[in-house]
Amino acid sequence: MATVTATRTHQVNGVDLDVLMETVGVIQKDRDMGIARFRASNTWLNGAQNRSEVTGFYGARQEIPHAKPFAMEADEPPILAGSDAAPNPVEHLLHALASCLTTSMVAHAAVRGLEIEALEAELEGDIDLNGFLGLDPNVPKGYMAIRVNYRIKANPDDIDEIRSLAGFSPVFNTLTQGTEVELSVEPV
Amino acid sequence: MATVTATRTHQVNGVDLDVLMETVGVIQKDRDMGIARFRASNTWLNGAQNRSEVTGFYGARQEIPHAKPFAMEADEPPILAGSDAAPNPVEHLLHALASCLTTSMVAHAAVRGLEIEALEAELEGDIDLNGFLGLDPNVPKGYMAIRVNYRIKANPDDIDEIRSLAGFSPVFNTLTQGTEVELSVEPV
Repeated sequence: MATVTATRTHQVNGVDLDVLMETVGVIQKDRDMGIARFRASNTWLNGAQNRSEVTGFYGARQEIPHAKPFAMEADEPPILAGSDAAPNPVEHLLHALASCLTTSMVAHAAVRGLEIEALEAELEGDIDLNGFLGLDPNVPKGYMAIRVNYRIKANPDDIDEIRSLAGFSPVFNTLTQGTEVELSVEPV
Repeated sequence: MATVTATRTHQVNGVDLDVLMETVGVIQKDRDMGIARFRASNTWLNGAQNRSEVTGFYGARQEIPHAKPFAMEADEPPILAGSDAAPNPVEHLLHALASCLTTSMVAHAAVRGLEIEALEAELEGDIDLNGFLGLDPNVPKGYMAIRVNYRIKANPDDIDEIRSLAGFSPVFNTLTQGTEVELSVEPV
């Protein structure tokens, strides 16, 4: 549950509007400042275990390092021959979607002065393993559908508008529109 | 770097083929055993910070709990009014893609007897923040392109086949084909 401190008027939903609006202002003056490139590296450990690292990104015409490097682990459950030491890739995808929808609603609501007291979601996505396992070439290999159910505590008059702000989410848009993924492999 | 232990003939690339082929056999006999539903819950903390939890999934006609609950955190860098305490949602998406491509290549290579000694990748994706920030409705809000560069240490004759196995990846297919995301919001 988040609280909005009345004495800090530039914060709504814990979002510092001075900072956010400064970024918006900079990009409004020079639209190429909005061009960003996000990055990750991934290293296979063994079996179904691998680890990604994120150290920084490109934005506002410069390389921007994170405060510290972040590591993300992946594994598979025993039924998929893993050791179940971390979420699997398609669960990480649900987190990417959930976190992006949440942040998009919270930040865009803040800009519009819409206070959110609490927000949580349940996600569920359908995969038919006949696709991934190569047992039926006609079965899609990816998610066939993902359902997201939010519970939001806010002014009831604001709920519909807050919901519409999910439409700004980059991960939501990437998943629903699709994107180009260019894959190259180099022997070492 | 992974090693393949010659004395454990059912393991290739650290993947236990007995376990994996048992799952394959079960689904081949009863294709509905392949129907899976992956799940996550997400809770907003404050500002750009939120956390997802994964506790289990549905597969093989049963609820399958993970060995333990897994938590995944998200935040934003300062330029996006966050506190930079965790990767941001679009970085989590890159991890989901990388981890899925890696696991798909490693597991399908194992089934085909193709040994991989080492495998790592760099990913980069393009986002124009003019979309997410609502500054230009004609700019896509999600990734416009993602580039993935793998370096694979294996028998040089196997590299092209290993590369083709990336096509089995559920996250890769979800991103390139797109998927339906159904969003509901309930006031509390």
